[in-house]
Amino acid sequence: MKAYTEMTKEELQTEFDQLQAEYRKFQAMQLSLNMARGKPCKEQLDLSMGMMDILNSSSDLCCEDGTDCRNYGVLDGIWECKVLMGAMMENDPENIIVYGNSSLNVMYDTVARAWSHGIMGNTPWCKLPEVKWLCPVPGYDRHFGITEYFGIKMIPVPMSPTGPDMDMVEKLVAEDESIKGIWCVPKYSNPQGYSYSDETVRRFARLKPAAKDFRIFWDNAYGVHHLYDDHQDNLIEILAECQRAGNPDMVYKFASTSKITFPGSGIAALATSANNLKDIKEQLKHQTIGHDKVNQLRHVRYFKNLDGIKAHMRKQADIIRPKFECVEDTFETELGGLGIGTWTKPNGGYFISFDSLPGCAREIVDKAKKAGVTLTGAGATWPYHRDPQDSNIRIAPTYPPLDDLKIAAKLFTVCVKMVSAEHLLQLDATKEK
Amino acid sequence: MKAYTEMTKEELQTEFDQLQAEYRKFQAMQLSLNMARGKPCKEQLDLSMGMMDILNSSSDLCCEDGTDCRNYGVLDGIWECKVLMGAMMENDPENIIVYGNSSLNVMYDTVARAWSHGIMGNTPWCKLPEVKWLCPVPGYDRHFGITEYFGIKMIPVPMSPTGPDMDMVEKLVAEDESIKGIWCVPKYSNPQGYSYSDETVRRFARLKPAAKDFRIFWDNAYGVHHLYDDHQDNLIEILAECQRAGNPDMVYKFASTSKITFPGSGIAALATSANNLKDIKEQLKHQTIGHDKVNQLRHVRYFKNLDGIKAHMRKQADIIRPKFECVEDTFETELGGLGIGTWTKPNGGYFISFDSLPGCAREIVDKAKKAGVTLTGAGATWPYHRDPQDSNIRIAPTYPPLDDLKIAAKLFTVCVKMVSAEHLLQLDATKEK
Repeated sequence: MKAYTEMTKEELQTEFDQLQAEYRKFQAMQLSLNMARGKPCKEQLDLSMGMMDILNSSSDLCCEDGTDCRNYGVLDGIWECKVLMGAMMENDPENIIVYGNSSLNVMYDTVARAWSHGIMGNTPWCKLPEVKWLCPVPGYDRHFGITEYFGIKMIPVPMSPTGPDMDMVEKLVAEDESIKGIWCVPKYSNPQGYSYSDETVRRFARLKPAAKDFRIFWDNAYGVHHLYDDHQDNLIEILAECQRAGNPDMVYKFASTSKITFPGSGIAALATSANNLKDIKEQLKHQTIGHDKVNQLRHVRYFKNLDGIKAHMRKQADIIRPKFECVEDTFETELGGLGIGTWTKPNGGYFISFDSLPGCAREIVDKAKKAGVTLTGAGATWPYHRDPQDSNIRIAPTYPPLDDLKIAAKLFTVCVKMVSAEHLLQLDATKEK
Repeated sequence: MKAYTEMTKEELQTEFDQLQAEYRKFQAMQLSLNMARGKPCKEQLDLSMGMMDILNSSSDLCCEDGTDCRNYGVLDGIWECKVLMGAMMENDPENIIVYGNSSLNVMYDTVARAWSHGIMGNTPWCKLPEVKWLCPVPGYDRHFGITEYFGIKMIPVPMSPTGPDMDMVEKLVAEDESIKGIWCVPKYSNPQGYSYSDETVRRFARLKPAAKDFRIFWDNAYGVHHLYDDHQDNLIEILAECQRAGNPDMVYKFASTSKITFPGSGIAALATSANNLKDIKEQLKHQTIGHDKVNQLRHVRYFKNLDGIKAHMRKQADIIRPKFECVEDTFETELGGLGIGTWTKPNGGYFISFDSLPGCAREIVDKAKKAGVTLTGAGATWPYHRDPQDSNIRIAPTYPPLDDLKIAAKLFTVCVKMVSAEHLLQLDATKEK
């Protein structure tokens, strides 16, 4: 098919009319589908049901060191869970704190603590005239939500397939002492599914920030979330690289089992340097007596070790890989060569990122909504929900059943084509005036 | 036996020598016992093991409203858990947020949020020159730990068997806008086991604080923790009373199942007004996607309703009542009439409060430690660990086995007598000079 940009006004109009008819057929189907959030589907959750049997009333709920997991104590997590999470995160168990059910919560707390008390003796951020933050874009809306809530000024940094624009990152953090952090999803990034190149990781570890309390918030949310056996992204481990580069305290690394077992009923962890751990525990001891050790034990007994997690994630991949492929194939078939959109083809993670013609994203999402398919709000992938190009849309293929997803993906392409054709017709009309 | 204060110097010295010999016998036993923290004992934890069977791989983990507890979502807790916690807290489910595993964590977060963002549109506390707090004493060390961590100036308020000195509370909160809160354990208080009288609760609900963002932190930690069937303390419900008094937003009420099922693996909840709930959820939505719903469901399915909790708590009481009675009997037998100490006899909760002669508490705790019995540090029940009288010691009888407790309680009385005798001898010596 001809690219839309090469069509005459008449051809575009004909195309638009056909699309509108097709769109109305979708509307008549009265769909109610959701591709908005990175949620596992029912079959993925079913994979972990065995975890509900692993502890029962006959189980010994004591750790290897004799700690009774049913009682108070153990602020930073039971040892065997540090070992498990450490193996998953490629860090030593000594560098791990095991938390409760949500790594987002750990990130929030980490910002909140810096806000009220400061990092390692530095001025609490609440006492500073301004705090700024680097936000690779497009990025994760809930990251941006935390920094926005604290009134931290967010500066967008463009993403590329190898990671954030490191020239810009290096320059900004070196120049501006009020820049205190950067949000990173280094592996299978949200929403593009990009993984940082070795050079990017090396440059991160060698940043020379003006602020002593600048920290990289390294959200390794998709560390073991590969879609393929034969195409897997692997990164240089950031804590070790920071250590080698003489910047041992510059990074907080986060992970959780939310998209491994049950979101909301999993365990989260932080990996960081000994100095940072000491600083954090000083707060943590006032905040809680300890997190849910029975659930930590449940995860350890269920997975046993990293091999157990990997085997489990292969089953997860088998369920969601066809969904990613369905979306990618539908996009290729319906939009390939039309010049009205680009999309990513990640090797893992939870999202596909779609870029429409500038000025079309909001309307595409709106059109899909009106035909019963909910997408992540346009703009959500940018700080303050402001996508200056109005072009990025996050696609979350995991939750809907495959049959529904096929329909939703097709409808999405119809919306993209319809909005793009209309947009180009309007541009033509503007030119004629 | 004669009161120590009525003994001659010679009688006291003889007594002291005998006690020292007795103390050495205890030391020779090489004990290692712990009466420091309010921890349930193994038998109490065993009571809840049935909870480990209530969910298994065949269970339907969906709520009554169809929500799959295994997936993301439901910020403020599943409905049936709000009903259960509401019943336990004597509040409507509409007024409840169900949290994670720790009410201490919820209290910390509540202070932290007021610190960074302010309460209901008021100035964030971090922007104020000074924030003050009322602390009924003796009180709970971890409460004081939170306010101390935020640099909040703590003002001690004397406790009586009917609650805090309300004349003082009323006067201070009315006069001083920088007073933003008060820590309360209204039922079976920590450490005295006192319960607030109806008049005290009514006066709390009718406070006229100068600060609009003054809040009562009502930690109902021992709401269902009765020791006896026939002697139970019951309080006027504070949210309803605040509502009646025209102060609906003045209280945050906290509770958890930590000392009902498994500490660290239970669920916590907050009850408060609709306005406060709205204010809190605005923060909560940035902090987390939701707490552990599977664990919420586990608790609901296990207890079913308030009757289930009450039946369970009766079994708990059967285990720990003899421990309270053992300590009280030992104190009565060994210290009764000596005029060197007073102690409380609570109807519930987790502690007995002991007051020694002024200036003796630290040394008593130290002596007990040197004979292998760990007590809560002297001073811990006061803000900044500063007990001006050096007289209060918190006794936590639940954790040690009864046989150990008998020995520990007896040793404690030996330490009290020895330190008191020595103290009185020194006073005599000082007088002679």
